[in-house]
Amino acid sequence: MTYEALERLVNERLPDCLNSLGEIPATLREAMLYSLEAGGKRLRPVLLLAAYGLLQEDVTPALPYACALEMIHTYSLIHDDLPAMDNDTLRRGKPTNHVRFGEAVAILAGDGLLNAAFELMLREAAASESLAGLRAAEMIARRAGVTGMIAGQTLDVTLEGTQPSLDKVGYIHAHKTADLLTAPMEAGLILAGASEDQLVAGRTYGYHLGIAFQMVDDLLDLEGDPARMGKHTGMDAAQGKLTWPACVGSARTREDAAAHIRQAVEAMEVFGERGIFLKALAQSTLTRVQ
Amino acid sequence: MTYEALERLVNERLPDCLNSLGEIPATLREAMLYSLEAGGKRLRPVLLLAAYGLLQEDVTPALPYACALEMIHTYSLIHDDLPAMDNDTLRRGKPTNHVRFGEAVAILAGDGLLNAAFELMLREAAASESLAGLRAAEMIARRAGVTGMIAGQTLDVTLEGTQPSLDKVGYIHAHKTADLLTAPMEAGLILAGASEDQLVAGRTYGYHLGIAFQMVDDLLDLEGDPARMGKHTGMDAAQGKLTWPACVGSARTREDAAAHIRQAVEAMEVFGERGIFLKALAQSTLTRVQ
Repeated sequence: MTYEALERLVNERLPDCLNSLGEIPATLREAMLYSLEAGGKRLRPVLLLAAYGLLQEDVTPALPYACALEMIHTYSLIHDDLPAMDNDTLRRGKPTNHVRFGEAVAILAGDGLLNAAFELMLREAAASESLAGLRAAEMIARRAGVTGMIAGQTLDVTLEGTQPSLDKVGYIHAHKTADLLTAPMEAGLILAGASEDQLVAGRTYGYHLGIAFQMVDDLLDLEGDPARMGKHTGMDAAQGKLTWPACVGSARTREDAAAHIRQAVEAMEVFGERGIFLKALAQSTLTRVQ
Repeated sequence: MTYEALERLVNERLPDCLNSLGEIPATLREAMLYSLEAGGKRLRPVLLLAAYGLLQEDVTPALPYACALEMIHTYSLIHDDLPAMDNDTLRRGKPTNHVRFGEAVAILAGDGLLNAAFELMLREAAASESLAGLRAAEMIARRAGVTGMIAGQTLDVTLEGTQPSLDKVGYIHAHKTADLLTAPMEAGLILAGASEDQLVAGRTYGYHLGIAFQMVDDLLDLEGDPARMGKHTGMDAAQGKLTWPACVGSARTREDAAAHIRQAVEAMEVFGERGIFLKALAQSTLTRVQ
């Protein structure tokens, strides 16, 4: 399947997932859908489906987990954009959630998406009495949690304006970004019945892709065109964010990103022919800054 | 076991649960613990253990789920106290989380506690390959979610200042409060291997206890002594909150609370002798306003 085909599967299923939860108050539902449907590349759920597809033909059984992961990603963006956090007013070319719905509803929409993600995964795993589903959800919980993404977010916010160092930047981005790209690799592979070796390969891929992805993101914030990106640029420097270019400069960041992508690609070797899609996906990350 | 004995079990286990997750950034961990250890009656986890104890002798296997539920309750208080929500500065006699740690960390501590609750339950259920654990976690997710507690919170916030009606107040409190007292009854009973009839009885108990509990809370906000309660009173009226006394007056609210408690007590009949503890617990709710 192509990236676009997987993305379409996710886009079609996302509103159904939300509706399947039952009667949600109108404002809350609207706010959740607003950010869920604001677009984005659906990278995390596509990775989960692609990881599942490394071992299985039909990826649809993995769709609820893929949608749950996108909900977690979306909640993190809504909370991250709040005035008390990064105070962003524009995302993907649209006003951020709190600008559109007010802070109170934005906070609740974020909480709601996080809770809904687990509700979906638990319901799916319980309905099919799937221990693999349970383990996949556990892995996602860990990567998204207080030793994972939320740990990275916390240091990203609390270390703002301090002296950049590779230690700090490495920690923040390993958790804030790479953990949520590693989670879909692990979850997809667990759901597909992967061996321990295959799981390690997926984890390696997710980590290196995540770090490279963040390096590219930092470069785009520094050098990108806001009109093309649908968000404000130059925000990192204005907010004193700890970024890769702030540590080692743009040229070295570009080189390091390429090195991480090479490692991600290499990790896919164990899957032979079936690894080609994820190899190409990793390589395409770099073209955004070439 | 006494209420105090169950409460002690929860208080002892809560920090271990947090520590078991791994290395949490210091500020985030401190903020999560600050609110977790701010006290409170531990009503929800005690209910979960008591519900489990209706059918089982040793309640310790249910402890991780009980602690997870307290984490969910605590996150909801942290987010509810935020300036954009109820803007409370005092809770349980201490500054609220965002007053102590700042808004950004308070938002992340809330997110962290919600995520940690699911991480704990999923890890526990996966480690013991327990389908009952999976179903209990699913039930908690549903009651805490966008058709449960978060739905109630949303209407509580968005309907502030509108004309009170029993419809609105009934919906808000059925979800904002009663759903999180029903969840422990359901989860505890599912974990203990209850029959469908027993589950229905537990659900009935939780609902009526929850509504009565909220009525008492509304009366205390109206008439209580702030020094004794460790929080500001008269906030509901000042914020235009939709409360039971605002709908039907204090005297009728007091009568209705007593009627709901009678229904909760009645629901415990099916458990015979073993139901005595939960009957007494329900009745004690009323003594706060007698």
